Amino acid sequence: MPNMKAVIFVEKGRIVLDEKAIPDIGPLDALIRVTTTTICGTDVHILKGKYPVERGLTIGHEPVGLIEKLGSAVDGYTEGQRVIAGAITPSGHSYACLCGCGSQDGPGTKHGFKAMGGWKFGNTIDGCQAEYVLVKDAMANLSPIPDGLTDEQVLMCPDIMSTGFSGAESGGVRIGDTVVVFALGPIGLCAVAGARLMGATTVIGVDTVPERLAVACTLGADHVVDFRAGDPVEQIMALTDGRGVDVAIEALGTQGTFESSLRVLRPGGTLSSLGVYSSDLRIPLDAFAAGLGDLKIVTTLCPGGKERMRRLMDVVSAGRADLKPLVTHRFKLDEIETAYDLFANQRDGVLKVAITP
Amino acid sequence: MPNMKAVIFVEKGRIVLDEKAIPDIGPLDALIRVTTTTICGTDVHILKGKYPVERGLTIGHEPVGLIEKLGSAVDGYTEGQRVIAGAITPSGHSYACLCGCGSQDGPGTKHGFKAMGGWKFGNTIDGCQAEYVLVKDAMANLSPIPDGLTDEQVLMCPDIMSTGFSGAESGGVRIGDTVVVFALGPIGLCAVAGARLMGATTVIGVDTVPERLAVACTLGADHVVDFRAGDPVEQIMALTDGRGVDVAIEALGTQGTFESSLRVLRPGGTLSSLGVYSSDLRIPLDAFAAGLGDLKIVTTLCPGGKERMRRLMDVVSAGRADLKPLVTHRFKLDEIETAYDLFANQRDGVLKVAITP
Amino acid sequence: MPNMKAVIFVEKGRIVLDEKAIPDIGPLDALIRVTTTTICGTDVHILKGKYPVERGLTIGHEPVGLIEKLGSAVDGYTEGQRVIAGAITPSGHSYACLCGCGSQDGPGTKHGFKAMGGWKFGNTIDGCQAEYVLVKDAMANLSPIPDGLTDEQVLMCPDIMSTGFSGAESGGVRIGDTVVVFALGPIGLCAVAGARLMGATTVIGVDTVPERLAVACTLGADHVVDFRAGDPVEQIMALTDGRGVDVAIEALGTQGTFESSLRVLRPGGTLSSLGVYSSDLRIPLDAFAAGLGDLKIVTTLCPGGKERMRRLMDVVSAGRADLKPLVTHRFKLDEIETAYDLFANQRDGVLKVAITP
Amino acid sequence: MPNMKAVIFVEKGRIVLDEKAIPDIGPLDALIRVTTTTICGTDVHILKGKYPVERGLTIGHEPVGLIEKLGSAVDGYTEGQRVIAGAITPSGHSYACLCGCGSQDGPGTKHGFKAMGGWKFGNTIDGCQAEYVLVKDAMANLSPIPDGLTDEQVLMCPDIMSTGFSGAESGGVRIGDTVVVFALGPIGLCAVAGARLMGATTVIGVDTVPERLAVACTLGADHVVDFRAGDPVEQIMALTDGRGVDVAIEALGTQGTFESSLRVLRPGGTLSSLGVYSSDLRIPLDAFAAGLGDLKIVTTLCPGGKERMRRLMDVVSAGRADLKPLVTHRFKLDEIETAYDLFANQRDGVLKVAITP
Repeated sequence: MPNMKAVIFVEKGRIVLDEKAIPDIGPLDALIRVTTTTICGTDVHILKGKYPVERGLTIGHEPVGLIEKLGSAVDGYTEGQRVIAGAITPSGHSYACLCGCGSQDGPGTKHGFKAMGGWKFGNTIDGCQAEYVLVKDAMANLSPIPDGLTDEQVLMCPDIMSTGFSGAESGGVRIGDTVVVFALGPIGLCAVAGARLMGATTVIGVDTVPERLAVACTLGADHVVDFRAGDPVEQIMALTDGRGVDVAIEALGTQGTFESSLRVLRPGGTLSSLGVYSSDLRIPLDAFAAGLGDLKIVTTLCPGGKERMRRLMDVVSAGRADLKPLVTHRFKLDEIETAYDLFANQRDGVLKVAITP
Repeated sequence: MPNMKAVIFVEKGRIVLDEKAIPDIGPLDALIRVTTTTICGTDVHILKGKYPVERGLTIGHEPVGLIEKLGSAVDGYTEGQRVIAGAITPSGHSYACLCGCGSQDGPGTKHGFKAMGGWKFGNTIDGCQAEYVLVKDAMANLSPIPDGLTDEQVLMCPDIMSTGFSGAESGGVRIGDTVVVFALGPIGLCAVAGARLMGATTVIGVDTVPERLAVACTLGADHVVDFRAGDPVEQIMALTDGRGVDVAIEALGTQGTFESSLRVLRPGGTLSSLGVYSSDLRIPLDAFAAGLGDLKIVTTLCPGGKERMRRLMDVVSAGRADLKPLVTHRFKLDEIETAYDLFANQRDGVLKVAITP
Repeated sequence: MPNMKAVIFVEKGRIVLDEKAIPDIGPLDALIRVTTTTICGTDVHILKGKYPVERGLTIGHEPVGLIEKLGSAVDGYTEGQRVIAGAITPSGHSYACLCGCGSQDGPGTKHGFKAMGGWKFGNTIDGCQAEYVLVKDAMANLSPIPDGLTDEQVLMCPDIMSTGFSGAESGGVRIGDTVVVFALGPIGLCAVAGARLMGATTVIGVDTVPERLAVACTLGADHVVDFRAGDPVEQIMALTDGRGVDVAIEALGTQGTFESSLRVLRPGGTLSSLGVYSSDLRIPLDAFAAGLGDLKIVTTLCPGGKERMRRLMDVVSAGRADLKPLVTHRFKLDEIETAYDLFANQRDGVLKVAITP
Repeated sequence: MPNMKAVIFVEKGRIVLDEKAIPDIGPLDALIRVTTTTICGTDVHILKGKYPVERGLTIGHEPVGLIEKLGSAVDGYTEGQRVIAGAITPSGHSYACLCGCGSQDGPGTKHGFKAMGGWKFGNTIDGCQAEYVLVKDAMANLSPIPDGLTDEQVLMCPDIMSTGFSGAESGGVRIGDTVVVFALGPIGLCAVAGARLMGATTVIGVDTVPERLAVACTLGADHVVDFRAGDPVEQIMALTDGRGVDVAIEALGTQGTFESSLRVLRPGGTLSSLGVYSSDLRIPLDAFAAGLGDLKIVTTLCPGGKERMRRLMDVVSAGRADLKPLVTHRFKLDEIETAYDLFANQRDGVLKVAITP
């Protein structure tokens, strides 16, 4: 196979564009020619050495592209078809998958479970910040893009939208609920949209960046809370007239947001955690009602698989959530290092970047 | 009204038998003549000053008795009927109750929710370690004892059995699950029985007291782990061949058992917490898969209400769980101070005591 | 007590405005001065003798009004407060209520269950097409109207909106679902709004009246199907590209709509039935996949209780569903017979009428 | 490949033992040498021409055997390993599978759903009443037999036990429920065991064959009802003191049992249907509470996949249900025609037969 360009983790602080062989595919795989991809906060964690991956790995887990080649056992697709795959690519056949827990997929492990095992792209296998990406278990993961949708319109589906929406879904949001979302980065913004989409009647977004607070309002927040303007817990309790919220979605991954999420819950409420934490967490005794408050803490890793992608693309097709404002910048793959610099440093009001090989 | 004997919290370290007026009842209340009751670990917390209640309050929340008198608006019962009421007595009419969250009942509050608000007996109103106890919202809470069951057979229903079983229920135990229960006091033992009753195929009990480990086996544990014999996490991972458990039930209320519960979960598993904690909790980053393991932490306060009591008494009637071994000692109400002394100090292999006024 | 005007069932074919004593209230009751109410399709069933009620009964189950008087045991409300109560008024304290099944409330029955027992107004006790209505178990049922909402804005909450939304809720609508609603009367229209509110991405409305099809579009239908234009099953299968729907909501109560609902389900789909049937139903073998299609048929009676009403009024407050177009005509209570005539004969494009005493 | 013996559908009324080529396997397949299998009621339907299959098809869908050969892309198994596969063999990668609905698997269809599509063995591909059987999507379906279990001990797992248990699971049986099972053939008997295993406290079995009623008692029935001794609905209402049951499991597939199941439900109850029907069904208006009883009718096709099989074999290993009494007769594959004759005519108290090639 000839070479392709790929974005490679070299060492802590260095992710570079380099050349790599276009991968060979096995019977269950597909080779995708990437037409658009993006950078995720997790990629920045990798760049900064906070999340360890092997040197030489291609980074990126949000692919939009064309089917270049199909494995010999792959049925139901045609070469040239426009597809996406989720950031998480469950095998479909592990014990975890068959238990409804595909994100924790461990097909090669003794028992079929592996923590975060469904996250393969740019983590345990080469990712999609490249001209081509190999998708394992293609039949479970390739999802055709509906006619009429552009690459950018579906670019949020593989990770940001799936993760953000899952915050509302795992939280069990019901018609009439009050929901707060802590931190309005791309995932938090999608959590706002997801809570709204499931019928929450009061959606509160918490952040401090004015542009993000403004986007939250366009995506469905009824109220925004700037935590520099005062204790966010107090502000939220005031907004809910002392009742607290039914569901609090944590979308940052810090002790502060985790703890505040817990403190604003009504008795019997649910903390739905999406953040990637980097240190131990503390549960304050009082915020936990000493264990007697019927509180729940649920965590969710981005749901993947082709059915999930199909549903999310339908949300876009149907105009139920307009995530276009999330793509604030565009780069060629050749400019990826500039893109990382902008994104990692949160400059110029960046939310998400579109990268086109 | 004449006086009655009642067990009263005087101050930290002193719970005494004293005289008190038999309460007057309102239209929705019932007066119950207590025939059997018991002491709970929470009562010991009160005694030791770890859980604050008002001086002069009658202690106790596990009543078995006869209806002495019914409020003018109470329909559907007859005086003289043998009944129990749950430790938690939801009003039935608060927003919390109508939201399916009766343990967090707050009928007098602005929004209808109050953390632990359903726990009234021996907490916010006089309890049942007395000759008589007033039951509020009697129609929602009095549950007739089926013919043929003795007081002692139903004595565990109001709290211990309801709480222990809820550990399995809130954990979502399914046929074929592996479940571990940390700490085999009365509640943990009932959690073992509950997990078994819901179809778990491997139930593991963890404790260190040989008698408790033995009772766990009679109630349905397939394996017991003595944590003095080595790290319980390692022992459980070995017993499950490295897979971990689907549901871990925490039944003590300490950092150690909480943390171990988290560490033995398979990815996607559920920690079902029953313990009453007395300090902040720590979630270790690695045990939490950095928030990406699809793990859930759920807490449950003892479910109450007459339908719950009816179901639990049916479990006893049908012989599905034999909790008689839990009642290890018997005392007259006059001997209550001796009973507290035995129970608080866990002497003589005590599990639960039966107190008869 | 002095007299009041009330709309009374006299005999098949005759519902008239008459005088009746203002009811006395018991300790748990409230007396509401009705400010607005409406007529329901069920009332027309009663008028036509299809649903039997006692002669002399006051009809109507959708009250909006002011608290005139509170029972001696009712706490948490003030006289003069603006409130609604649901069409279904669960007691809060029966076994059915405590089992989460308040619509089938049977507090006076042996076991606490009674089919449709929660439906009391205008069925088993006097209803609200009158100047005053007595609300039993007031604490479980009176829900204060949020500031800023008019009577007409909340007039759909007690029945139409609660029932319609429950079609989507009981159907388990999820983000990305395709949902069809058969028959676009007021309940079907609310089912459309409910499906949309829960995240369905394709909502299909089926009817034949152009005005109703038009209102369906404003409430969230993506497609409408006129069944006079061809077999609705074929049209829906074409619209879904042969896949069928995830959830079909039946909102009429006929064999035709029931059967079509079943026929358009994808394998594993759910038929959520809201209609009031008046004859036996037939399940065609092929539409049922011989019992092997993992199909579900769920029926729901309008959920009631104050928490439900609170949530629905919040939907209105938050502007999530604008049901104003449903109120097409207005009458004084004195004109009730004219209103019945218009409504029963579906004249002048009537959807719902507002009646003001 | 050389030939093997296989049981072949020739025409209505004729299923014969014949020779057939041992199948070639593709990359995702496995070839299993069958060591034990059985005959199902569905096979008798096929024999009698009530369920159409292609002429020449090998019958049978309950395989126990050894891995003879693995496809080139199959990982995680070794040749010679003892395994079972479910009667239903989901691919793991269709939209239906990824939607949690693997029994309605349609990997080759446009949308990924096909009614009963997961049932392949002896229906759409050659089955396992043969010396060898090809298992598609082997990684999703082969489940290793735990050490110490005999073929006969796991012979019920692929279909009878999975189907029977699913009756209780889909019915949502909870601790304290009353459950009735209509018809005590092998599936009904497993439904009894399943209801018991999930915590039902009153399990009622209905049949007329004394041996079956007796086996029901050993598997967990608290009461048995002989429907020749009087109307079963009346008997069940009497046994439940007029309340009715929480869950009724239909395990035969006739109008009579379906209708009786509906008639014994308490308001809000669930009819969980397992039967294979052969004609239209009628829902009587009164038994359906005119659609207003919050009743649910759920149907389930035998859940398959290796995780399901693992869990069921764990139930056997753990001694939670002893299904040995179900295997009443044993035959060599050469005697299969005799076995069909016995089984189809329900002679000699037969419940299930073990067939050993």
